[in-house]
Amino acid sequence: MEGTPLEGHSLGLLPWFMAATQILGLTAVIMTGVWLGHYEGGFAWDGSSLELNVHPLCMVIGMIFLYGDAILVYRVFKNESKTTVKILHAAIHLTALVAAIVGLLAVFGYHAAQNIPNMYSLHSWCGLITVILFCTQWVMGLMFFLFPGSTYALRACYRPLHEYFGLGLFILAIGTALMGITEKLLFSIRDTYSKFVPQGILANALGLVLVSFGITVGYIVTRSEWRRVTNPEEEALSMHFKTLTEGDSPDSPQGQ
Amino acid sequence: MEGTPLEGHSLGLLPWFMAATQILGLTAVIMTGVWLGHYEGGFAWDGSSLELNVHPLCMVIGMIFLYGDAILVYRVFKNESKTTVKILHAAIHLTALVAAIVGLLAVFGYHAAQNIPNMYSLHSWCGLITVILFCTQWVMGLMFFLFPGSTYALRACYRPLHEYFGLGLFILAIGTALMGITEKLLFSIRDTYSKFVPQGILANALGLVLVSFGITVGYIVTRSEWRRVTNPEEEALSMHFKTLTEGDSPDSPQGQ
Repeated sequence: MEGTPLEGHSLGLLPWFMAATQILGLTAVIMTGVWLGHYEGGFAWDGSSLELNVHPLCMVIGMIFLYGDAILVYRVFKNESKTTVKILHAAIHLTALVAAIVGLLAVFGYHAAQNIPNMYSLHSWCGLITVILFCTQWVMGLMFFLFPGSTYALRACYRPLHEYFGLGLFILAIGTALMGITEKLLFSIRDTYSKFVPQGILANALGLVLVSFGITVGYIVTRSEWRRVTNPEEEALSMHFKTLTEGDSPDSPQGQ
Repeated sequence: MEGTPLEGHSLGLLPWFMAATQILGLTAVIMTGVWLGHYEGGFAWDGSSLELNVHPLCMVIGMIFLYGDAILVYRVFKNESKTTVKILHAAIHLTALVAAIVGLLAVFGYHAAQNIPNMYSLHSWCGLITVILFCTQWVMGLMFFLFPGSTYALRACYRPLHEYFGLGLFILAIGTALMGITEKLLFSIRDTYSKFVPQGILANALGLVLVSFGITVGYIVTRSEWRRVTNPEEEALSMHFKTLTEGDSPDSPQGQ
């Protein structure tokens, strides 16, 4: 892992970028909590607008903060076995999915209690598409990368799509959150938003923190020199699988 | 350019993906025109809401459709000289910037005429940040890649950042447009949006087309086998520059 001085310097920055993602992600969660807790009356599960407040909090925790962290595990745990990191990746995503489902139940429950139609806004269209594709991506990832039935060739073929759509859906989740913030503010403080009231500034700032989180996570995972380097043992295993499994199935889930 | 059967197959899909981007991009421009022309009264430059309608049309044409096409020129003109493609890239971006400035003048002019405060919404914050960083990126690109004063080493160092933030700002422009659509609908058809009126459905569908355009452009430019292959002459020239210009300046702008 010595590399050139430039590579050494670049690798040295990774912990700082990682720290930045965690500060930005946690700040986003706290700001969402303060916005809804302090300015919007807090949280409840009673069909009132306090139940609606549960929705953004769960979505920011699940579909943004945990989703981002699940993507980053491959850059953090470079020396753990690939299978361990895959399981961690899948487990964090599953936790994110549970949070997202609670968030969806909150908004559908609120709409049912208040007799408000569902799924009419662009925010809701993008949000539901994101969650459905996120589930699909999770199941596909499980089948291709953790179940033993998949071949090396199939994994190598699907992997770039999994990575592209994984990051793409994460970005779409952030875009959906920005629309959600806009909607919430125009329903709650429509008459005072243009007067730069604290609630509006806080929620706008939250939007910028979410964008910054997305930009930082995206930069870390797309920077080629920070990609996980397959260790020689894993490489040998992969090559073994490749030889064994041209169109056939490997004996173990590891090696992709 | 023969490659393996898989590579050949993959390269064969590029024209279809390119066609998809153009269909999606033009559809987005037409849908924006129909939405504002048919449902929102059309366009004018008189300080009324018809001037405000100019804003989304210019932004979709400039900051999304032309911006996307400027990114794609490196995948389309694979056999033209690098310098020609760079100039085309810069020229399309400049046209996009002119459209964006007209779009900004429209919204600031409308706000001034109607005595509405500027820059209070998250849409406006993200939009202005995007346009300012877009200008910065354009000037930096010009200095690093088209002016003869830059060294090979500097270009190689800046290029990944230019590519990452170029695509990042394009995505942010789409995210800003999604917020803009949400804002416009909640101001125009707040009481009927939830009744699935045609205007709401058209504008929501426009949002999905913009997202699809972004996903397709992003996929094309990040797919490694579709990257521009430097031809042997350019490669030799680059290496010549590299030898000549370790910390020094090349004699010609070509070769990055």
